[in-house]
Amino acid sequence: MLKFDEGKVLKNMEGALKLRPQINEVIDDVFSRGFSNVCWLGIGGTYASAMQAVVHMKERTELETFYENAAVFLTTGNKRVTKDTFVVISSVTGSTEEVVQAVKKCKEIGAKVLGFIDKADTELASLVDYLISYPLNEQLKFFMVGDRFMYLAGEFAEYDEFYSEMDQHFAKGIVEVEKAADEFGKEFAKKHHEDAIHYFVGAGNQWGATYSYAMCYWEEQHWIKTKSIEAHEFFHGMFEIVERDTPVTIYVTEDTQRALSERVARFIPQICGNYTIIDAKDYDVPGISEKFRGTLSPFILHAVNNRIDVHVEQINRHPMEIRRYYRQLDY
Amino acid sequence: MLKFDEGKVLKNMEGALKLRPQINEVIDDVFSRGFSNVCWLGIGGTYASAMQAVVHMKERTELETFYENAAVFLTTGNKRVTKDTFVVISSVTGSTEEVVQAVKKCKEIGAKVLGFIDKADTELASLVDYLISYPLNEQLKFFMVGDRFMYLAGEFAEYDEFYSEMDQHFAKGIVEVEKAADEFGKEFAKKHHEDAIHYFVGAGNQWGATYSYAMCYWEEQHWIKTKSIEAHEFFHGMFEIVERDTPVTIYVTEDTQRALSERVARFIPQICGNYTIIDAKDYDVPGISEKFRGTLSPFILHAVNNRIDVHVEQINRHPMEIRRYYRQLDY
Repeated sequence: MLKFDEGKVLKNMEGALKLRPQINEVIDDVFSRGFSNVCWLGIGGTYASAMQAVVHMKERTELETFYENAAVFLTTGNKRVTKDTFVVISSVTGSTEEVVQAVKKCKEIGAKVLGFIDKADTELASLVDYLISYPLNEQLKFFMVGDRFMYLAGEFAEYDEFYSEMDQHFAKGIVEVEKAADEFGKEFAKKHHEDAIHYFVGAGNQWGATYSYAMCYWEEQHWIKTKSIEAHEFFHGMFEIVERDTPVTIYVTEDTQRALSERVARFIPQICGNYTIIDAKDYDVPGISEKFRGTLSPFILHAVNNRIDVHVEQINRHPMEIRRYYRQLDY
Repeated sequence: MLKFDEGKVLKNMEGALKLRPQINEVIDDVFSRGFSNVCWLGIGGTYASAMQAVVHMKERTELETFYENAAVFLTTGNKRVTKDTFVVISSVTGSTEEVVQAVKKCKEIGAKVLGFIDKADTELASLVDYLISYPLNEQLKFFMVGDRFMYLAGEFAEYDEFYSEMDQHFAKGIVEVEKAADEFGKEFAKKHHEDAIHYFVGAGNQWGATYSYAMCYWEEQHWIKTKSIEAHEFFHGMFEIVERDTPVTIYVTEDTQRALSERVARFIPQICGNYTIIDAKDYDVPGISEKFRGTLSPFILHAVNNRIDVHVEQINRHPMEIRRYYRQLDY
């Protein structure tokens, strides 16, 4: 299978799951000291992950939790962020300027910051109150944080049951999804690698990922134009430009917002002959109970997207690490 | 001037400003009874206005205030919305299904709802706790609500001074902006009425409007493809698809997020020869103090957009009231 080292992927995900005791130590400490709210702070891809964490928590929580864009936080600020706020950030490079500055601002305010920073030897890593350094799996790390908060708040009684299943079956299951999706990914890439623009529709815990897949993958790494739209917003304007040949992909999740994407999936064949529906439900993850499937959707759909990406990259002979402008020019 | 009835526009805006005593009666009542938070609830265009109201309040407030999409509220729900929440909605037709159902859900929860509903003889109008019925000016209505809350919370000491200026000079000033922008609107329409896709960049209290202008005007009413992007997100992926001839419009506001759009405006000439910068600062509104100019940006830029719209409509011979699918098909 193209660009797929099964052992490596498996080991990386299993390692991420093993961060949980370390994460819990932090959250248990924060919870016992008291906090007013939880702020997920990011920009670009990490902003998208922050959106997903908030949607994930919304399913269950009464806690005040919100996402904030690092650049907005630096200009307008956010008066809900106080010394009692718990801030979560994530950074691969540790060098995203807006995030470094935003964390400095958090420190001034007195808010406590947990940083998932892949590179531990960066200034950003030295700034955060709690540092966890492990590569990739941003979404999983965020969900483990959110879930622990909800568990401690008495809102997630099945926490132990869920993570017992996750620890045993998640990594292997997602690896199997990648394998199962490879042929689809190849066909999809063949059909869409030259699209003038591609529309991605998503909702629920896949919305942040849909926004980020369109922008941080197709636009940034494949240089293909996209628009991403929330499934429920699709009917409030955007769909008027869809015609027979408009390429539209709809992600369908298994969380509470499933019905919103299903509505688009049901409607689209009437007006469009160039659509694709990618439904998390079509991918088996043995060992995970039906009742927990909703949480898996972004991971399943991410695995499917991975297979699309490697094939688009190969067909277009456009290595995904090339950037035209990003960190190439001053801005 | 094409499709511009100065007297009518002026009268309509002045009438909207005169809603303030009625609005204040509601907010003063809510404030004295007590409330936990303020939720701006909408979908499509009203969702966009809700985003703007939250950004507007963020400039000053410590109150918990957030926007919620009606469709998401109906599926995932939002446990921060309780019997103590004050919900604000707006609807021109009074018949948007998701909003009708969402208000019913608010009633079940016990949250109090203020509805700006242009048509007073609708089911939606009968459902809300407080009804204010007056055509158009959604943004102004929302800002008057937000400002009253902040005034009562002791966060807007200049409230009286601001609205004294607004009552005297706002309507006339915005009408003058429309006139001043007409020639520009015509030139812009001539240049861009056939764009394959047009990019709109915005931030601050113009971000919601940028999202909505792209989707609810160009896509829905002109049937021209668009993508809207937050100025600060532009650099985190999207800009990789911008080339010499890519049509990009950047809205620059005068609020605290001005710097974010300015950054794009400064950068764009390096990579693109088909850009337009629309800066609120370029339009005079006599009688409004410099310190209040930030709040005016979305109104100024809306007036400019109005002039673009009438010219695109005329050049394309595409009446803006035509819909292909919206309320034409079942979905």
